[in-house]
Amino acid sequence: MSNSTQEDASAVPAGLPRRTEDGPAKLRMKADAAQRAAIAAELQAALDGPFAASRAAARDLITDRNLRPDDTLPLDEARERTLSQLFDLLATGAPRGAFRTDHGGTGDIGATLSAIETVGGADLSLMVKAGVQWGLWGGAVENLGTDRHVPLIRDIMELRVPGSFGMTERGHGSDVQALETTAVYDRATREFVIHTPTPMAEKWYIGNAAKHATMAAVFCQLYTPAGDYEEQDAGQDAGQDATTVPESWGDSHGVHCLVVPLRDADGKALPGVGIGDHGYKGGLKGVDNGTLRFDHVRVPRENLLNRFADVSEDGEYSSPIESDGARFFTMLGALIRGRITVGASAGSAARTSLTIATKYATKRRQFAPDDSMPESRLIEHRKHRLRLIPLIAKSYAMQLASNKLISRLAELETTVPDRTDMTKEQSANQRELEAHAAALKAAGTAHATRTIQECREACGGSGYMAENLITTFKDDSDVFTTFEGDNVVMMQLAAKELLTGFSREMGNLGPLEVVRFGLDSFGTLLKRRTAAEKIIQSLVDSVTDRETTSLFDPAYQVELLTERENRLLMSLIRRIRPAQKMSTADAAALVDSTQDHMLSCAWAHVDRIVLEALLEAEAALPDGQAKQIMEQIRDVYLLSLINDNSGWYQEQNILNGARTKAARAALNDLVDSLGPWAETLVDAFAVPESVLDIPLLADVSDPTALTFRCDTHPAAGMQG
Amino acid sequence: MSNSTQEDASAVPAGLPRRTEDGPAKLRMKADAAQRAAIAAELQAALDGPFAASRAAARDLITDRNLRPDDTLPLDEARERTLSQLFDLLATGAPRGAFRTDHGGTGDIGATLSAIETVGGADLSLMVKAGVQWGLWGGAVENLGTDRHVPLIRDIMELRVPGSFGMTERGHGSDVQALETTAVYDRATREFVIHTPTPMAEKWYIGNAAKHATMAAVFCQLYTPAGDYEEQDAGQDAGQDATTVPESWGDSHGVHCLVVPLRDADGKALPGVGIGDHGYKGGLKGVDNGTLRFDHVRVPRENLLNRFADVSEDGEYSSPIESDGARFFTMLGALIRGRITVGASAGSAARTSLTIATKYATKRRQFAPDDSMPESRLIEHRKHRLRLIPLIAKSYAMQLASNKLISRLAELETTVPDRTDMTKEQSANQRELEAHAAALKAAGTAHATRTIQECREACGGSGYMAENLITTFKDDSDVFTTFEGDNVVMMQLAAKELLTGFSREMGNLGPLEVVRFGLDSFGTLLKRRTAAEKIIQSLVDSVTDRETTSLFDPAYQVELLTERENRLLMSLIRRIRPAQKMSTADAAALVDSTQDHMLSCAWAHVDRIVLEALLEAEAALPDGQAKQIMEQIRDVYLLSLINDNSGWYQEQNILNGARTKAARAALNDLVDSLGPWAETLVDAFAVPESVLDIPLLADVSDPTALTFRCDTHPAAGMQG
Repeated sequence: MSNSTQEDASAVPAGLPRRTEDGPAKLRMKADAAQRAAIAAELQAALDGPFAASRAAARDLITDRNLRPDDTLPLDEARERTLSQLFDLLATGAPRGAFRTDHGGTGDIGATLSAIETVGGADLSLMVKAGVQWGLWGGAVENLGTDRHVPLIRDIMELRVPGSFGMTERGHGSDVQALETTAVYDRATREFVIHTPTPMAEKWYIGNAAKHATMAAVFCQLYTPAGDYEEQDAGQDAGQDATTVPESWGDSHGVHCLVVPLRDADGKALPGVGIGDHGYKGGLKGVDNGTLRFDHVRVPRENLLNRFADVSEDGEYSSPIESDGARFFTMLGALIRGRITVGASAGSAARTSLTIATKYATKRRQFAPDDSMPESRLIEHRKHRLRLIPLIAKSYAMQLASNKLISRLAELETTVPDRTDMTKEQSANQRELEAHAAALKAAGTAHATRTIQECREACGGSGYMAENLITTFKDDSDVFTTFEGDNVVMMQLAAKELLTGFSREMGNLGPLEVVRFGLDSFGTLLKRRTAAEKIIQSLVDSVTDRETTSLFDPAYQVELLTERENRLLMSLIRRIRPAQKMSTADAAALVDSTQDHMLSCAWAHVDRIVLEALLEAEAALPDGQAKQIMEQIRDVYLLSLINDNSGWYQEQNILNGARTKAARAALNDLVDSLGPWAETLVDAFAVPESVLDIPLLADVSDPTALTFRCDTHPAAGMQG
Repeated sequence: MSNSTQEDASAVPAGLPRRTEDGPAKLRMKADAAQRAAIAAELQAALDGPFAASRAAARDLITDRNLRPDDTLPLDEARERTLSQLFDLLATGAPRGAFRTDHGGTGDIGATLSAIETVGGADLSLMVKAGVQWGLWGGAVENLGTDRHVPLIRDIMELRVPGSFGMTERGHGSDVQALETTAVYDRATREFVIHTPTPMAEKWYIGNAAKHATMAAVFCQLYTPAGDYEEQDAGQDAGQDATTVPESWGDSHGVHCLVVPLRDADGKALPGVGIGDHGYKGGLKGVDNGTLRFDHVRVPRENLLNRFADVSEDGEYSSPIESDGARFFTMLGALIRGRITVGASAGSAARTSLTIATKYATKRRQFAPDDSMPESRLIEHRKHRLRLIPLIAKSYAMQLASNKLISRLAELETTVPDRTDMTKEQSANQRELEAHAAALKAAGTAHATRTIQECREACGGSGYMAENLITTFKDDSDVFTTFEGDNVVMMQLAAKELLTGFSREMGNLGPLEVVRFGLDSFGTLLKRRTAAEKIIQSLVDSVTDRETTSLFDPAYQVELLTERENRLLMSLIRRIRPAQKMSTADAAALVDSTQDHMLSCAWAHVDRIVLEALLEAEAALPDGQAKQIMEQIRDVYLLSLINDNSGWYQEQNILNGARTKAARAALNDLVDSLGPWAETLVDAFAVPESVLDIPLLADVSDPTALTFRCDTHPAAGMQG
């Protein structure tokens, strides 16, 4: 075992405490406002991670432009407002990081993603619109295109060409490989013919499409002429019934992406292009989602984004990647930014909601124990602390894991710009990154959904008033569990990667194929740790005696989560191995019956990698009060997980009932310990004051200075 | 032990199976459409319970008027639309059940509540507006007023006087006893002076107030002249600073309710009345919530709703109930209809959402195991069944429990019209009813919040489109966990009643007082069972051998939930007993530290009474397929609870790890068994076809018959 610390292997690595006592360390309770602000700043620095500058710029933009959702605007106004904010965001320069320096960008993808994430903490419509423009539409052309597309990339970057990302279809959202839109090469005119063969093949939910996009990256099944023949008539014969593919279309090459113009300079749809408008959604009123339909729309051959596959003038198909499946997944792999941004931004919205609910809870008073005592502040109730503080702790953990993911993406994009020629190690890294992006997308968005709901309820009636923003964050973030990959599908994808040990050879297979042909032997599973994670490995190796080890001990904590991940994966493999010798139908049924188990594996994995991100951040903090607080945040995160899985830990004889009870009691102690620090904890989220300038917080900040709202209420004037 | 069946005590009561095998009974899978419809009808009859006729009438109204939420309307239009629908609802006669026959009503409260609940399955704005008008405003005058208020009651019933329920204040929502608005009797003019002393005393979130109410039932701290003196000048001296009460106000009598006119015939606010408008909320766009402020508004003495307390012309206060606290809780007890309706209606919205998501899941296809096999329907995935079927089962259980609650309310209102002279048994029944109303309100609304969220996600992108209604149900129902009593407060209230054994003497105390002075001895706790529940008691008595008893055995199931309730309550009492000898501050701290434990007790209680409602409904079904399905629904409900609490059951040595694992496996078996019946299960909810006429269901019903939505989309026309 490599030893990344200067101490001996059995000791705790530098920067992390070895706890044996069964209780949280005492926090120094007496801290004045300046000391608290200093601690919040230190915690904020840890949370901002390597992206402090881009986050600061985004916060300035939020403050300058008073960015925040406005649920009272009519649909059209909301959409135009968000479009104009997009130009504000461009003016900060943040979007240019999504593009390479030789394309006119800054190449600082970490800066762009963290800026968009930060904007998500103020207005998710703007975040999504930015994500569509620069992340999805720009990202498709940037990552799937070649030199001939650079002028377009510059136009996208500078918002001269607003565009859409035309992947999802009415009939196929999560199962992208099965989508139906066709692109058939017509050798005669050197054009592709883009066509929507069935109503189920319409592109649906497409951001920017209903109003603003002038072009789209459209994902299609690509066909090129079979062999060498004279007459090729895709444009003529391809009728609306595409259940059978006309022989004249030639060979199928699977899903590819092409640039398709949608609107003319006056904003009118081009001939053959049908555009629908989804109108009102559950939220994201500022985003104009629409539908796209193509009736034999012709685009030049050069509109194929040809980085991973090309079609010559005379219709010859070529690709550096032989298998259709492998090529498809390589293309998708180049597009994971969107997925990463979605998970990160959901977390950002959750942090804003937690900041609102926590500040409210530290001021709002209700219920006196009896007439002799004052009314308690909400945070002084144990249950209220149990509602908010574990969610705050998890928000810390998720943000740190998300930072790490963004850093890894930036590193990989820098070191391996050309994805077609990776080493085995690079390929495994890329696969792991994809799996983590999927898993953290699901975990982050699920956390946000739960957290914002809890914050709404914890603010009572005030939380339900649109002026206090929480309901809009709830509405806007609600689809985050669905778009950029449905959470259940994402977790299955992550589980599949766990089953293959992130192997390149296996990663292109579907879940059933993985099970039938690609189960890794357990020996090579789970052993991957990046260099940065050696500190974690030495922690795990340092655990000597499980029975007596403290639940507060970081080494034991990692072991508890690692053990859960390993056992769940081992038992899953035992369950599905028989499928290898079954008929397809039987094997599919068996694999489906383990679906819940498979998802549990992915959750166990993500729980563990998130803990490790927390530990790394804690280890990097200098000794002091902020570090002690971070330690307790880590304990809250861990003990919440133990509580949530206490049945499993007992079933597995890893923890007995006395210890799971102790975990519950310890969590209570911890929220009591952190209760007086609650506001400091959320101050570290650094939500701009302009977002927090809402009636709900004004209402409680100084009741004696309040005015009658009947006279002043912004929503409507007083009557009478 | 009384034996309510004709069999011997150790046998299973008539109507319930005694299971020893560890697996669900085989359901007959081959059933044609007619057979399935017959089974759905039988299940529907069980769910409709004693309220089939009123539910049918409400369903007819929904169909006739095409009632459903419309999220695309501007605020004002949405409000006017809901007001006009209120007249439609009145035309069905349903609201008249909320009023006694001698007041011009029909006295059939069960019919009214179940009709309003059913409307909630189509449009929660209308449900809430109806609840405000007839349940809260009408209910206050009906239940707190006397003969002199009968003309007003008739006007309310016939919608001639739209009104508000002015209880909640900006500063005090859940803690109603602490509200600040004052009503001071002025002997000189024989009027009450209604005043809002501080900004925090404004009435907030008041339904109907922003636009339509012409009067309100306003809850105030009541003051009458102290003794006999000449000069009484409440109208003059009571300034806005009411932190000290002027001596001239006289004696305080606690919270009382008075009728206060708000608007003149032109809709203009009356002098001294300030009305604000909350504008946009998280949902319920059709309900005009507003704020109310009173500046020394004078109302005649007769406007006091004087059923439980009166003030004579010369200012003498009298009440049949001596203690202010007891009187207050008696008043509140008369107003639990609202709470019951809220819980029931949330369930109704959850059932509609489940119907949409389940029908979608039985048709929508995505993902083929491999190219040789067709794409699977969503319901064919185990995880999808695990998402929906336990929520369907719980929805059955909650509706049956809610029916029972409504029936008990109706029975009690009939047998004990005058609440001031109850027998000890009647009083305990009333207390239990209040506790169950609080607990089921919290459990029902929490279930709805979780269920509608899951349904939204289970429908993917389609679920996020406003046209498919789920997001509006989510938005509209979201505040149900807060209004009519915050869920945390409701569960504490229920726990408090458990601690006092529903005793009248103790029920008026606050939680801390209960603990310090009112802890019941455990001997008398939990022993109450109504006559109708004797079947349950004999079940419990029939369990002989825990170790081998099947988890499918209904007797053992009741025992498992009863044991959880009993043990949690016993250990809670052990924890809080020391508070009896502590200082107030220490006792309050100790009690607060058990808050989570207290809430667990209430949850355990509600879980048990809900199971019992399921068992009673199952026992009443004739033998056959519907009954077998109901049995499996009960098993799913129970096993889900065991899974959720598997950590606790192991800690307590009630179930070992092998049995909790078996419970998880059994739940999987059950959702597999019920999967093919999923659509039948939701058909029994009898959601009107007009509510289900949404694009999401049309999209999947027959993909070959679909048109291109770009051309036909209702939200916006095609462009280009």
